[in-house]
Amino acid sequence: MKHRRRIGKQDFPVAEVRRFLEPGPVVLVSSAYRGATNIMTMGWHMVMEFSPSLVACMIASANHSFELIRKSRECVINVPEAALADAVVGVGNCSGADVDKFARFRLTASPATFVEAPLIAECFANLECRLYDAAMVRKYNVFIWEVVKAHAPAAPKYPKTMHYRGEGMFMLSGASANWRRKFRPGML
Amino acid sequence: MKHRRRIGKQDFPVAEVRRFLEPGPVVLVSSAYRGATNIMTMGWHMVMEFSPSLVACMIASANHSFELIRKSRECVINVPEAALADAVVGVGNCSGADVDKFARFRLTASPATFVEAPLIAECFANLECRLYDAAMVRKYNVFIWEVVKAHAPAAPKYPKTMHYRGEGMFMLSGASANWRRKFRPGML
Repeated sequence: MKHRRRIGKQDFPVAEVRRFLEPGPVVLVSSAYRGATNIMTMGWHMVMEFSPSLVACMIASANHSFELIRKSRECVINVPEAALADAVVGVGNCSGADVDKFARFRLTASPATFVEAPLIAECFANLECRLYDAAMVRKYNVFIWEVVKAHAPAAPKYPKTMHYRGEGMFMLSGASANWRRKFRPGML
Repeated sequence: MKHRRRIGKQDFPVAEVRRFLEPGPVVLVSSAYRGATNIMTMGWHMVMEFSPSLVACMIASANHSFELIRKSRECVINVPEAALADAVVGVGNCSGADVDKFARFRLTASPATFVEAPLIAECFANLECRLYDAAMVRKYNVFIWEVVKAHAPAAPKYPKTMHYRGEGMFMLSGASANWRRKFRPGML
């Protein structure tokens, strides 16, 4: 559990959360329902709209978090940096039915502003989500969320993220490339 | 248009295409309808299921490709390597209503096996897709695809991909990290 640091955060515009989610990082989803909380590791998500700020994600019903999320109709999508890899992998390989993942992985549950689900303080960014559309839940376990509040540091601009490839392998985010000069203004 | 090379490909298991899509790269979507073809750059996609191999993606209706894709109910999701950055950015910043993007960006349209939409030969992997569920198209412009055939090289195992962050900025895929020893077998 090395490389953990306090992260000073401020409000981040919800319409711009693509910056953190669109590159495809593994995230930690925190949830709460009637006093019970949990965390799961999740990699199947997609930005859908800027305003309202919509994000879809697939949460398999076998997860202990599924019922907490389905019943509370809320969650927090937390974006961990690669320094949290041990927690990211650990959280994904045990069940909230058996363990308190906040305690086991020494993650700090901080109060959110608009949802009951806790923020994970050690993560780079925290996106408070309310269920926007349940139409895809029954058939596909896909939840369509509205990000109602986002928390992120002023700097660095981009977190060092982990991206899952299956088979226990992750890709770590690499260099930045600025192609802005080749974009038409409306296409940024 | 440097660093282009011929890529020898073989059939790739459709249930394993998460390897290429789950880390969240920008992709090129090729389409065809009644003799017209087009390409668009797309970043909002999500793996949904292994078998059938399902992938969701958001294709804004303002794109010239939208009607080709909606009417043909097919597309090819092509995964470009970072060496194709000039084409990836260029394709995303002009319209198929005005230009033949295959010609302008010197991309090669190769015949697919099961769909009319062409494969882009210069891309690392090519996923032939048939529309699986149109339920989300009208409200969200989200298409749920079944990957019916995939083409990828035997090596390297992982492409060097581009991941969009908005504002003209890309993240390039970085190092690999193997956490397999920390996974429970069923969680890989």
